[in-house]
Amino acid sequence: MEGRKVYGTLSSPATLKVMACLCEHDLDFEFVPVDLDAGEHKKKPFLSMSPFGDLPVYQDKGVTQFESRAIIRSMAHEHAKPGGLELIFWDAKQQAVVANWVDVEDHWFEPPALVLIDELIIKPKKGLDPDPQIVSEAKARLSKVLDVYEAQLTKKKYLAADKFTIADLLHLPNLERLMNTTAKNLIESRPHLSSWCADILARPAWAKVRQMQKKAQAN
Amino acid sequence: MEGRKVYGTLSSPATLKVMACLCEHDLDFEFVPVDLDAGEHKKKPFLSMSPFGDLPVYQDKGVTQFESRAIIRSMAHEHAKPGGLELIFWDAKQQAVVANWVDVEDHWFEPPALVLIDELIIKPKKGLDPDPQIVSEAKARLSKVLDVYEAQLTKKKYLAADKFTIADLLHLPNLERLMNTTAKNLIESRPHLSSWCADILARPAWAKVRQMQKKAQAN
Repeated sequence: MEGRKVYGTLSSPATLKVMACLCEHDLDFEFVPVDLDAGEHKKKPFLSMSPFGDLPVYQDKGVTQFESRAIIRSMAHEHAKPGGLELIFWDAKQQAVVANWVDVEDHWFEPPALVLIDELIIKPKKGLDPDPQIVSEAKARLSKVLDVYEAQLTKKKYLAADKFTIADLLHLPNLERLMNTTAKNLIESRPHLSSWCADILARPAWAKVRQMQKKAQAN
Repeated sequence: MEGRKVYGTLSSPATLKVMACLCEHDLDFEFVPVDLDAGEHKKKPFLSMSPFGDLPVYQDKGVTQFESRAIIRSMAHEHAKPGGLELIFWDAKQQAVVANWVDVEDHWFEPPALVLIDELIIKPKKGLDPDPQIVSEAKARLSKVLDVYEAQLTKKKYLAADKFTIADLLHLPNLERLMNTTAKNLIESRPHLSSWCADILARPAWAKVRQMQKKAQAN
Protein backbone atom coordinates (compact mmCIF):
# COMPACT_ATOMS: atom_id res chain seq x y z
CA MET A 1 0.00 0.00 0.00
CA GLU A 2 1.25 3.46 -0.85
CA GLY A 3 2.04 5.84 1.98
CA ARG A 4 0.30 9.07 2.92
CA LYS A 5 0.76 11.99 0.56
CA VAL A 6 0.09 15.69 0.92
CA TYR A 7 0.04 17.68 -2.34
CA GLY A 8 0.28 21.38 -1.56
CA THR A 9 2.53 24.34 -0.96
CA LEU A 10 4.29 25.47 2.19
CA SER A 11 2.71 28.90 1.81
CA SER A 12 -0.86 27.58 1.78
CA PRO A 13 -2.46 27.78 5.24
CA ALA A 14 -4.72 24.82 4.44
CA THR A 15 -1.68 22.70 3.56
CA LEU A 16 0.05 23.72 6.79
CA LYS A 17 -3.05 22.85 8.84
CA VAL A 18 -3.06 19.32 7.42
CA MET A 19 0.69 18.97 8.07
CA ALA A 20 0.21 20.17 11.66
CA CYS A 21 -2.42 17.47 12.17
CA LEU A 22 -0.12 14.80 10.70
CA CYS A 23 2.73 15.95 12.99
CA GLU A 24 0.46 16.00 16.06
CA HIS A 25 -0.34 12.34 15.37
CA ASP A 26 3.28 11.46 14.53
CA LEU A 27 2.28 10.19 11.10
CA ASP A 28 4.81 9.84 8.29
CA PHE A 29 3.88 11.40 4.99
CA GLU A 30 5.36 12.46 1.71
CA PHE A 31 5.03 16.15 0.84
CA VAL A 32 4.52 16.69 -2.90
CA PRO A 33 4.96 20.36 -3.84
CA VAL A 34 2.44 21.81 -6.31
CA ASP A 35 3.80 24.51 -8.62
CA LEU A 36 1.21 27.29 -8.38
CA ASP A 37 3.27 29.65 -10.58
CA ALA A 38 3.08 27.10 -13.38
CA GLY A 39 -0.67 26.76 -12.74
CA GLU A 40 -0.25 23.05 -11.96
CA HIS A 41 -3.31 23.16 -9.67
CA LYS A 42 -5.54 24.25 -12.55
CA LYS A 43 -4.39 21.49 -14.93
CA LYS A 44 -5.52 17.96 -15.60
CA PRO A 45 -3.59 15.56 -13.37
CA PHE A 46 -4.13 17.74 -10.30
CA LEU A 47 -7.77 18.50 -11.16
CA SER A 48 -8.53 14.78 -11.26
CA MET A 49 -7.69 14.70 -7.52
CA SER A 50 -9.04 18.13 -6.54
CA PRO A 51 -11.82 19.12 -8.96
CA PHE A 52 -11.91 22.77 -7.83
CA GLY A 53 -8.13 23.14 -8.09
CA ASP A 54 -7.83 23.73 -4.37
CA LEU A 55 -4.90 22.86 -2.08
CA PRO A 56 -4.01 20.60 -0.38
CA VAL A 57 -4.89 17.12 -1.58
CA TYR A 58 -4.47 14.30 0.90
CA GLN A 59 -4.19 10.67 -0.09
CA ASP A 60 -4.25 7.78 2.32
CA LYS A 61 -5.31 4.17 1.86
CA GLY A 62 -6.81 4.83 -1.55
CA VAL A 63 -8.97 7.76 -0.38
CA THR A 64 -8.35 11.18 -1.91
CA GLN A 65 -9.60 14.24 -0.01
CA PHE A 66 -9.32 17.87 -1.02
CA GLU A 67 -11.05 19.80 1.76
CA SER A 68 -8.57 20.55 4.56
CA ARG A 69 -11.04 20.60 7.45
CA ALA A 70 -12.57 17.31 6.30
CA ILE A 71 -9.06 15.80 6.08
CA ILE A 72 -8.21 16.98 9.61
CA ARG A 73 -11.53 15.83 11.06
CA SER A 74 -11.16 12.32 9.62
CA MET A 75 -7.49 12.05 10.54
CA ALA A 76 -8.09 13.11 14.14
CA HIS A 77 -10.82 10.49 14.51
CA GLU A 78 -8.86 7.73 12.80
CA HIS A 79 -5.60 8.29 14.64
CA ALA A 80 -6.79 9.32 18.11
CA LYS A 81 -4.86 7.43 20.78
CA PRO A 82 -7.27 6.68 23.61
CA GLY A 83 -5.61 7.78 26.83
CA GLY A 84 -2.98 9.60 24.73
CA LEU A 85 -3.37 12.29 22.10
CA GLU A 86 -7.00 12.82 21.17
CA LEU A 87 -7.78 16.04 19.31
CA ILE A 88 -11.48 15.15 19.22
CA PHE A 89 -14.00 13.67 21.65
CA TRP A 90 -15.94 10.42 21.40
CA ASP A 91 -18.70 11.78 23.59
CA ALA A 92 -21.39 13.20 21.26
CA LYS A 93 -22.08 16.30 23.36
CA GLN A 94 -18.43 17.26 23.67
CA GLN A 95 -17.71 16.51 20.02
CA ALA A 96 -20.69 18.72 19.04
CA VAL A 97 -18.90 21.64 20.70
CA VAL A 98 -15.66 20.87 18.82
CA ALA A 99 -17.61 20.70 15.52
CA ASN A 100 -19.15 24.08 16.32
CA TRP A 101 -15.76 25.77 16.84
CA VAL A 102 -14.27 24.11 13.76
CA ASP A 103 -16.97 25.87 11.75
CA VAL A 104 -16.37 29.15 13.60
CA GLU A 105 -12.75 29.13 12.42
CA ASP A 106 -13.99 28.46 8.87
CA HIS A 107 -16.77 31.04 8.74
CA TRP A 108 -15.65 33.82 11.10
CA PHE A 109 -11.94 33.75 11.91
CA GLU A 110 -10.29 32.81 8.63
CA PRO A 111 -12.01 35.24 6.22
CA PRO A 112 -10.82 38.50 7.87
CA ALA A 113 -7.48 36.87 8.81
CA LEU A 114 -6.81 36.05 5.14
CA VAL A 115 -7.67 39.60 4.07
CA LEU A 116 -5.17 40.98 6.59
CA ILE A 117 -2.47 38.49 5.59
CA ASP A 118 -2.98 39.40 1.96
CA GLU A 119 -2.82 43.14 2.62
CA LEU A 120 -0.05 43.15 5.23
CA ILE A 121 2.23 40.30 4.10
CA ILE A 122 1.53 39.15 0.54
CA LYS A 123 1.03 42.53 -1.13
CA PRO A 124 4.15 44.13 0.42
CA LYS A 125 6.21 41.09 -0.71
CA LYS A 126 5.09 41.87 -4.25
CA GLY A 127 6.08 45.52 -3.81
CA LEU A 128 2.46 46.67 -3.46
CA ASP A 129 1.07 48.92 -0.73
CA PRO A 130 -1.67 47.67 1.60
CA ASP A 131 -5.03 49.40 1.15
CA PRO A 132 -5.62 51.21 4.50
CA GLN A 133 -9.42 51.07 4.08
CA ILE A 134 -9.43 47.30 3.53
CA VAL A 135 -7.00 46.79 6.43
CA SER A 136 -9.09 48.83 8.80
CA GLU A 137 -12.34 47.08 7.86
CA ALA A 138 -10.75 43.64 8.22
CA LYS A 139 -9.26 44.59 11.60
CA ALA A 140 -12.68 45.74 12.78
CA ARG A 141 -14.27 42.45 11.62
CA LEU A 142 -11.52 40.38 13.20
CA SER A 143 -11.76 42.35 16.47
CA LYS A 144 -15.40 41.38 16.88
CA VAL A 145 -14.49 37.72 16.34
CA LEU A 146 -11.63 37.96 18.82
CA ASP A 147 -13.97 39.43 21.43
CA VAL A 148 -16.01 36.24 21.16
CA TYR A 149 -12.81 34.17 21.42
CA GLU A 150 -11.67 36.11 24.50
CA ALA A 151 -15.03 35.49 26.18
CA GLN A 152 -14.88 31.79 25.29
CA LEU A 153 -11.26 31.43 26.46
CA THR A 154 -12.23 32.97 29.79
CA LYS A 155 -14.54 29.97 30.26
CA LYS A 156 -12.33 27.21 28.81
CA LYS A 157 -8.57 26.76 28.38
CA TYR A 158 -9.00 26.04 24.65
CA LEU A 159 -11.76 27.02 22.25
CA ALA A 160 -13.97 23.95 22.51
CA ALA A 161 -12.80 22.36 25.75
CA ASP A 162 -10.11 22.38 28.41
CA LYS A 163 -7.95 20.34 26.04
CA PHE A 164 -6.36 21.22 22.69
CA THR A 165 -8.57 20.00 19.83
CA ILE A 166 -8.69 20.30 16.04
CA ALA A 167 -10.69 23.53 16.54
CA ASP A 168 -7.53 25.15 17.97
CA LEU A 169 -5.15 23.46 15.53
CA LEU A 170 -6.95 24.98 12.53
CA HIS A 171 -5.92 28.47 13.68
CA LEU A 172 -2.15 27.84 13.70
CA PRO A 173 -0.96 29.00 10.25
CA ASN A 174 -3.05 32.17 10.15
CA LEU A 175 -2.35 33.07 13.81
CA GLU A 176 1.37 32.65 13.18
CA ARG A 177 1.23 35.03 10.24
CA LEU A 178 -1.02 37.58 11.96
CA MET A 179 1.53 37.74 14.80
CA ASN A 180 4.01 39.06 12.21
CA THR A 181 1.75 41.98 11.29
CA THR A 182 0.26 45.01 13.01
CA ALA A 183 -2.78 42.80 13.74
CA LYS A 184 -0.61 41.33 16.53
CA ASN A 185 -2.02 44.04 18.83
CA LEU A 186 -5.53 42.67 18.37
CA ILE A 187 -4.32 39.41 19.87
CA GLU A 188 -1.97 40.72 22.55
CA SER A 189 -4.51 43.17 23.93
CA ARG A 190 -6.80 40.30 24.91
CA PRO A 191 -5.16 38.40 27.80
CA HIS A 192 -6.83 34.98 27.47
CA LEU A 193 -6.54 35.03 23.71
CA SER A 194 -2.90 36.02 23.97
CA SER A 195 -2.07 33.11 26.33
CA TRP A 196 -3.99 30.67 24.14
CA CYS A 197 -2.14 31.91 21.07
CA ALA A 198 1.29 31.57 22.73
CA ASP A 199 0.33 28.12 24.04
CA ILE A 200 -0.80 26.63 20.74
CA LEU A 201 1.99 28.20 18.67
CA ALA A 202 4.47 26.53 21.07
CA ARG A 203 3.23 23.01 20.35
CA PRO A 204 6.09 20.71 19.29
CA ALA A 205 4.07 19.50 16.26
CA TRP A 206 3.80 23.07 15.01
CA ALA A 207 7.54 23.59 15.53
CA LYS A 208 8.09 20.55 13.30
CA VAL A 209 5.93 22.06 10.55
CA ARG A 210 7.84 25.36 10.78
CA GLN A 211 11.11 23.41 10.59
CA MET A 212 9.93 21.78 7.33
CA GLN A 213 8.99 25.21 6.01
CA LYS A 214 12.40 26.68 6.86
CA LYS A 215 14.24 23.72 5.35
CA ALA A 216 12.26 24.09 2.12
CA GLN A 217 12.90 27.85 1.99
CA ALA A 218 16.63 27.25 2.49
CA ASN A 219 16.78 24.86 -0.49
CA MET B 1 -35.00 17.75 30.74
CA GLU B 2 -36.10 20.36 28.25
CA GLY B 3 -36.87 19.28 24.71
CA ARG B 4 -35.01 20.15 21.52
CA LYS B 5 -35.32 23.74 20.33
CA VAL B 6 -34.51 25.40 17.02
CA TYR B 7 -34.31 29.20 17.10
CA GLY B 8 -34.42 30.54 13.55
CA THR B 9 -36.55 31.73 10.68
CA LEU B 10 -38.33 29.74 8.00
CA SER B 11 -36.62 31.85 5.34
CA SER B 12 -33.10 31.02 6.55
CA PRO B 13 -31.56 28.16 4.55
CA ALA B 14 -29.41 27.15 7.52
CA THR B 15 -32.51 26.87 9.74
CA LEU B 16 -34.27 24.76 7.08
CA LYS B 17 -31.26 22.45 6.79
CA VAL B 18 -31.35 21.75 10.53
CA MET B 19 -35.12 21.16 10.39
CA ALA B 20 -34.67 18.77 7.46
CA CYS B 21 -32.16 16.78 9.50
CA LEU B 22 -34.53 16.67 12.50
CA CYS B 23 -37.38 15.47 10.24
CA GLU B 24 -35.17 12.83 8.60
CA HIS B 25 -34.51 11.40 12.07
CA ASP B 26 -38.15 11.78 13.18
CA LEU B 27 -37.12 13.95 16.12
CA ASP B 28 -39.61 16.22 17.87
CA PHE B 29 -38.57 19.80 18.35
CA GLU B 30 -39.93 23.21 19.20
CA PHE B 31 -39.43 25.90 16.57
CA VAL B 32 -38.80 29.32 18.12
CA PRO B 33 -39.07 32.11 15.53
CA VAL B 34 -36.45 34.87 15.69
CA ASP B 35 -37.65 38.31 14.62
CA LEU B 36 -34.96 39.50 12.20
CA ASP B 37 -36.87 42.70 11.36
CA ALA B 38 -36.72 43.68 15.03
CA GLY B 39 -33.00 42.81 15.05
CA GLU B 40 -33.59 40.19 17.74
CA HIS B 41 -30.58 38.18 16.48
CA LYS B 42 -28.25 41.12 17.17
CA LYS B 43 -29.45 41.69 20.74
CA LYS B 44 -28.46 40.32 24.13
CA PRO B 45 -30.53 37.21 24.90
CA PHE B 46 -29.96 35.78 21.41
CA LEU B 47 -26.27 36.77 21.31
CA SER B 48 -25.65 34.83 24.51
CA MET B 49 -26.58 31.67 22.56
CA SER B 50 -25.11 32.63 19.18
CA PRO B 51 -22.25 35.09 19.71
CA PHE B 52 -22.05 36.10 16.03
CA GLY B 53 -25.81 36.65 15.78
CA ASP B 54 -26.14 33.85 13.26
CA LEU B 55 -29.16 31.57 12.72
CA PRO B 56 -30.18 28.97 13.67
CA VAL B 57 -29.41 28.07 17.26
CA TYR B 58 -30.01 24.48 18.29
CA GLN B 59 -30.41 23.38 21.88
CA ASP B 60 -30.51 19.80 23.02
CA LYS B 61 -29.57 18.19 26.33
CA GLY B 62 -28.01 21.38 27.62
CA VAL B 63 -25.74 21.87 24.59
CA THR B 64 -26.18 25.03 22.52
CA GLN B 65 -24.85 25.01 18.96
CA PHE B 66 -24.98 27.83 16.42
CA GLU B 67 -23.22 26.46 13.34
CA SER B 68 -25.73 24.61 11.15
CA ARG B 69 -23.33 22.11 9.61
CA ALA B 70 -21.91 21.26 13.03
CA ILE B 71 -25.46 20.76 14.34
CA ILE B 72 -26.33 18.46 11.45
CA ARG B 73 -23.10 16.49 11.70
CA SER B 74 -23.58 15.82 15.41
CA MET B 75 -27.27 15.04 15.08
CA ALA B 76 -26.71 12.57 12.27
CA HIS B 77 -24.09 10.74 14.33
CA GLU B 78 -26.12 10.77 17.53
CA HIS B 79 -29.40 9.64 15.98
CA ALA B 80 -28.24 7.22 13.29
CA LYS B 81 -30.30 4.05 13.41
CA PRO B 82 -27.98 1.16 12.56
CA GLY B 83 -29.66 -0.90 9.85
CA GLY B 84 -32.17 1.95 9.41
CA LEU B 85 -31.62 5.60 8.56
CA GLU B 86 -27.95 6.53 8.68
CA LEU B 87 -27.01 9.79 6.99
CA ILE B 88 -23.35 9.25 7.89
CA PHE B 89 -20.94 6.29 7.88
CA TRP B 90 -19.14 4.68 10.78
CA ASP B 91 -16.36 3.46 8.50
CA ALA B 92 -13.57 6.07 8.64
CA LYS B 93 -12.80 5.94 4.90
CA GLN B 94 -16.42 6.35 3.86
CA GLN B 95 -17.08 9.05 6.44
CA ALA B 96 -14.01 10.94 5.16
CA VAL B 97 -15.73 11.18 1.77
CA VAL B 98 -18.94 12.48 3.37
CA ALA B 99 -16.94 15.09 5.32
CA ASN B 100 -15.28 16.17 2.07
CA TRP B 101 -18.60 16.78 0.30
CA VAL B 102 -20.09 18.54 3.32
CA ASP B 103 -17.29 21.08 2.97
CA VAL B 104 -17.80 21.30 -0.80
CA GLU B 105 -21.39 22.44 -0.22
CA ASP B 106 -20.11 25.00 2.28
CA HIS B 107 -17.23 26.39 0.24
CA TRP B 108 -18.28 25.94 -3.40
CA PHE B 109 -22.01 25.37 -3.85
CA GLU B 110 -23.63 27.70 -1.34
CA PRO B 111 -21.76 30.97 -2.05
CA PRO B 112 -22.85 31.37 -5.71
CA ALA B 113 -26.27 29.83 -4.91
CA LEU B 114 -26.90 32.51 -2.26
CA VAL B 115 -25.88 35.28 -4.66
CA LEU B 116 -28.38 33.99 -7.24
CA ILE B 117 -31.15 33.60 -4.67
CA ASP B 118 -30.52 37.13 -3.46
CA GLU B 119 -30.56 38.59 -6.97
CA LEU B 120 -33.38 36.50 -8.45
CA ILE B 121 -35.74 36.01 -5.49
CA ILE B 122 -35.02 38.36 -2.59
CA LYS B 123 -34.34 41.58 -4.53
CA PRO B 124 -37.44 41.25 -6.79
CA LYS B 125 -39.57 40.65 -3.66
CA LYS B 126 -38.35 44.02 -2.38
CA GLY B 127 -39.21 45.64 -5.72
CA LEU B 128 -35.56 45.81 -6.80
CA ASP B 129 -34.12 44.67 -10.14
CA PRO B 130 -31.50 41.93 -10.26
CA ASP B 131 -28.06 43.11 -11.39
CA PRO B 132 -27.47 41.26 -14.71
CA GLN B 133 -23.68 41.37 -14.29
CA ILE B 134 -23.79 39.80 -10.81
CA VAL B 135 -26.31 37.19 -12.00
CA SER B 136 -24.19 36.21 -14.96
CA GLU B 137 -20.99 35.92 -12.90
CA ALA B 138 -22.72 33.84 -10.22
CA LYS B 139 -24.24 31.56 -12.88
CA ALA B 140 -20.80 31.06 -14.41
CA ARG B 141 -19.33 30.19 -10.98
CA LEU B 142 -22.19 27.86 -10.14
CA SER B 143 -21.94 26.15 -13.55
CA LYS B 144 -18.35 25.14 -12.89
CA VAL B 145 -19.38 23.68 -9.53
CA LEU B 146 -22.29 21.82 -11.13
CA ASP B 147 -19.94 20.33 -13.72
CA VAL B 148 -18.02 18.75 -10.85
CA TYR B 149 -21.30 17.54 -9.31
CA GLU B 150 -22.45 16.04 -12.62
CA ALA B 151 -19.14 14.15 -12.93
CA GLN B 152 -19.41 12.92 -9.34
CA LEU B 153 -23.07 11.88 -9.75
CA THR B 154 -22.12 9.86 -12.81
CA LYS B 155 -19.95 7.76 -10.50
CA LYS B 156 -22.23 7.60 -7.43
CA LYS B 157 -25.99 7.88 -6.91
CA TYR B 158 -25.51 10.62 -4.28
CA LEU B 159 -22.66 13.05 -3.75
CA ALA B 160 -20.59 11.10 -1.26
CA ALA B 161 -21.89 7.55 -1.68
CA ASP B 162 -24.63 5.43 -3.18
CA LYS B 163 -26.82 6.41 -0.25
CA PHE B 164 -28.31 9.78 0.79
CA THR B 165 -26.08 11.44 3.39
CA ILE B 166 -25.87 14.79 5.19
CA ALA B 167 -23.76 16.03 2.24
CA ASP B 168 -26.88 15.80 0.04
CA LEU B 169 -29.27 17.06 2.73
CA LEU B 170 -27.35 20.33 3.09
CA HIS B 171 -28.27 21.27 -0.49
CA LEU B 172 -32.05 21.08 -0.05
CA PRO B 173 -33.14 24.66 0.79
CA ASN B 174 -30.91 26.35 -1.78
CA LEU B 175 -31.65 23.78 -4.51
CA GLU B 176 -35.37 24.22 -3.91
CA ARG B 177 -35.08 27.98 -4.33
CA LEU B 178 -32.76 27.81 -7.35
CA MET B 179 -35.36 25.60 -9.07
CA ASN B 180 -37.73 28.59 -8.84
CA THR B 181 -35.34 30.85 -10.74
CA THR B 182 -33.76 30.96 -14.20
CA ALA B 183 -30.84 29.04 -12.66
CA LYS B 184 -33.11 25.99 -12.98
CA ASN B 185 -31.65 25.47 -16.46
CA LEU B 186 -28.19 24.97 -15.00
CA ILE B 187 -29.56 22.00 -13.07
CA GLU B 188 -31.91 20.53 -15.68
CA SER B 189 -29.30 20.61 -18.44
CA ARG B 190 -27.14 18.13 -16.48
CA PRO B 191 -28.91 14.74 -16.47
CA HIS B 192 -27.39 13.11 -13.38
CA LEU B 193 -27.59 16.32 -11.40
CA SER B 194 -31.19 16.77 -12.47
CA SER B 195 -32.19 13.26 -11.31
CA TRP B 196 -30.33 13.73 -8.02
CA CYS B 197 -32.06 17.05 -7.45
CA ALA B 198 -35.54 15.58 -8.14
CA ASP B 199 -34.73 12.60 -5.92
CA ILE B 200 -33.59 14.54 -2.85
CA LEU B 201 -36.28 17.24 -3.13
CA ALA B 202 -38.87 14.41 -3.07
CA ARG B 203 -37.76 13.08 0.31
CA PRO B 204 -40.68 12.84 2.78
CA ALA B 205 -38.66 14.67 5.45
CA TRP B 206 -38.21 17.63 3.11
CA ALA B 207 -41.93 17.60 2.32
CA LYS B 208 -42.55 17.87 6.07
CA VAL B 209 -40.29 20.93 6.32
CA ARG B 210 -42.06 22.58 3.37
CA GLN B 211 -45.39 21.83 5.03
CA MET B 212 -44.24 23.64 8.18
CA GLN B 213 -43.11 26.57 6.04
CA LYS B 214 -46.49 26.76 4.26
CA LYS B 215 -48.40 26.53 7.52
CA ALA B 216 -46.35 29.38 8.98
CA GLN B 217 -46.85 31.53 5.87
CA ALA B 218 -50.61 30.94 6.02
CA ASN B 219 -50.78 32.18 9.63
